[in-house]
Amino acid sequence: MRGVSVIGVGCTPFGKQTGVGITDLALQACREALHDAQVPTSLVQSFYLGNFASEALVHQGSLAPIVAYRLGLGPIPCTRVEGACASSGIAFRHGVLLIASGLCDIVLAAGVEKMTSAETGAVTEALASAGDAESEMRLGLTFPGTFGIIMRRHMHQYGTTREQVGMVSVKNRQNGSANPKAHFQKPVALEEVMGSRLICDPLRLYDCTPISDGAAAAVLCAADLASEFTQRPIDVIGSGHAIGPATLFEMADLTTFEASVAAAQQAYREAGIAPRDIDVAEVHDCFTIAEITAIEDLGFVEKGKGGPAVADGLTALDGKLPINPSGGLLSKGHPVGATGLAQIYEIVGQLRGEAINQVKGAQIGLAHNLGGTGAVSTVHILKRR
Amino acid sequence: MRGVSVIGVGCTPFGKQTGVGITDLALQACREALHDAQVPTSLVQSFYLGNFASEALVHQGSLAPIVAYRLGLGPIPCTRVEGACASSGIAFRHGVLLIASGLCDIVLAAGVEKMTSAETGAVTEALASAGDAESEMRLGLTFPGTFGIIMRRHMHQYGTTREQVGMVSVKNRQNGSANPKAHFQKPVALEEVMGSRLICDPLRLYDCTPISDGAAAAVLCAADLASEFTQRPIDVIGSGHAIGPATLFEMADLTTFEASVAAAQQAYREAGIAPRDIDVAEVHDCFTIAEITAIEDLGFVEKGKGGPAVADGLTALDGKLPINPSGGLLSKGHPVGATGLAQIYEIVGQLRGEAINQVKGAQIGLAHNLGGTGAVSTVHILKRR
Repeated sequence: MRGVSVIGVGCTPFGKQTGVGITDLALQACREALHDAQVPTSLVQSFYLGNFASEALVHQGSLAPIVAYRLGLGPIPCTRVEGACASSGIAFRHGVLLIASGLCDIVLAAGVEKMTSAETGAVTEALASAGDAESEMRLGLTFPGTFGIIMRRHMHQYGTTREQVGMVSVKNRQNGSANPKAHFQKPVALEEVMGSRLICDPLRLYDCTPISDGAAAAVLCAADLASEFTQRPIDVIGSGHAIGPATLFEMADLTTFEASVAAAQQAYREAGIAPRDIDVAEVHDCFTIAEITAIEDLGFVEKGKGGPAVADGLTALDGKLPINPSGGLLSKGHPVGATGLAQIYEIVGQLRGEAINQVKGAQIGLAHNLGGTGAVSTVHILKRR
Repeated sequence: MRGVSVIGVGCTPFGKQTGVGITDLALQACREALHDAQVPTSLVQSFYLGNFASEALVHQGSLAPIVAYRLGLGPIPCTRVEGACASSGIAFRHGVLLIASGLCDIVLAAGVEKMTSAETGAVTEALASAGDAESEMRLGLTFPGTFGIIMRRHMHQYGTTREQVGMVSVKNRQNGSANPKAHFQKPVALEEVMGSRLICDPLRLYDCTPISDGAAAAVLCAADLASEFTQRPIDVIGSGHAIGPATLFEMADLTTFEASVAAAQQAYREAGIAPRDIDVAEVHDCFTIAEITAIEDLGFVEKGKGGPAVADGLTALDGKLPINPSGGLLSKGHPVGATGLAQIYEIVGQLRGEAINQVKGAQIGLAHNLGGTGAVSTVHILKRR
């Protein structure tokens, strides 16, 4: 297989972006990534766009060709991919596949979601469509519900405390307070998390990600050609993509997402490394409890030890394994289709040594993207040269 | 590049499928294709599902993992791809790419759409989202509008007559009358087409495809392994995928879809053949006029000669180049995300020599799928061994 590198990244601010349409959001991130890579549009051979629900949210389908044509990409293959909240992790992976297999030299991958212009009810309905509409979602079990049940089970099974879970929010909001692109840039204290409005017991307001607009993009290039464009290519050394059950009733263990475990194993195997080799990670903290299950599923800590790990500072910025130095989804917001590539944007920044909350000496980083209640996951491992 | 073959196909009946959800529709086609290929689910290494607007139409996103998990595919990569009406042409192409590049041996590709359970207004709105929501569609220019303008321009520019265009409907409804899976199985006379209800001048009711439910699927396999599963593999000898402008105002010529031209050139080049080598083709007749522009864009006839070609019987079942022997979208219906793979289903049947309207001695067939008003297109060329 041919080596693959990231040679450029772009990301819009996340949050409520009034007066900017979904096409313009995507264009902004793509242009930033192409500029960062110093790659002219004429060299891009394929384009992947991750998006979750633009037909339902902004009445726009066919988004890949529309964005690509406006970008001036020419008559190349352009594809929108969707895997709920993992949509742009999947877009990034397709760039990796096409270059690794020798089909392309340069691929542009982007992700976008425009959520705040839709009515709240429409957003709730669209988000619920990431679950199984024919079973659980029909019964009213939306995502705060599924993750509330998962949190309750984790507390029961492993003695995880409400405080430990709340500290994920405290840590990520602290990290996000330095991130000018984050939706929320204000830290919160543990008492504020514990006292915030109840959303779905035991989840409270500050355990949840907000509804945001945003886009992110990356330019991928064959590793052997990367030095023609940049002096600091970041190599993709592992890529995993797997599915799991989309419903709670099909999960063998409510505290583990099989898709994350399988995608991580695939990525570690390809990279030839172990979880302990990771210096920094962006994981899918759509709810506080999701960060705890993620660091367990990714093998950073033993199953059930995620709560104490957070409380003990293992995952803090100055801890042994900093998790979500960007502030994570809890701070940045979660424009669904953009999230996976925003994680790549952060990890690339970390490995270039120019991130906002720079992890000192970071050599290897990991990005973990999750769709639905574990229906699909992607894991990517990146390394500086 | 490694050769790629189709070793199994499946297709549900198209039409109004009451009481069958979108997941079950997709499962039905997938199971038929796997059974046809004699491939157990454990051998499938990747799954692509083409779907246009399931979030908007049936409140179901994340469809690829949901269908794959129900099918029992295991923790493999599963991806929903969307390119408006070309969604499952794109799904099929990704199967081709993954095998041709050596990444996989066996890939399942499917396409599905469930449209008739949504309110008519919701369907119209969803379909309009395949155009550019921020420009033309906002002004009320839905697809009968765009194709009506294209038809008017074709008539003006080349002297194409209303009767010639209407004969596409007569031919395809005649072909479809033998197809038990078609939504419409009743032939129509030219007078009926010409006298049918005006939809958007000059398009009349019988110039348009109906709203339908349906799913189709294909099992793709490395050509060198195909004989382990079947004695009649159909080889994919050319694959093209390209974008073009998504709006009328960006088109250089209203009678040509650049995406179709580019995708066809790519597929012919890869196959090392010319348009005259094609024995049978399924082309994207979402409206009667679209079949005429398609046979021109694909190089079967000179630009502007599509009307006379139909009227002279060139494209009839017993003509020199039979087009849409299945009945096309005009007879089968157009469950958007399923259409591309239903075309593959028909061409595979033709090349196996077991199609309903069998074209005698067909050796090479072509499938042409189009998204939006030419925003994206795929072209595949298949050959019997």
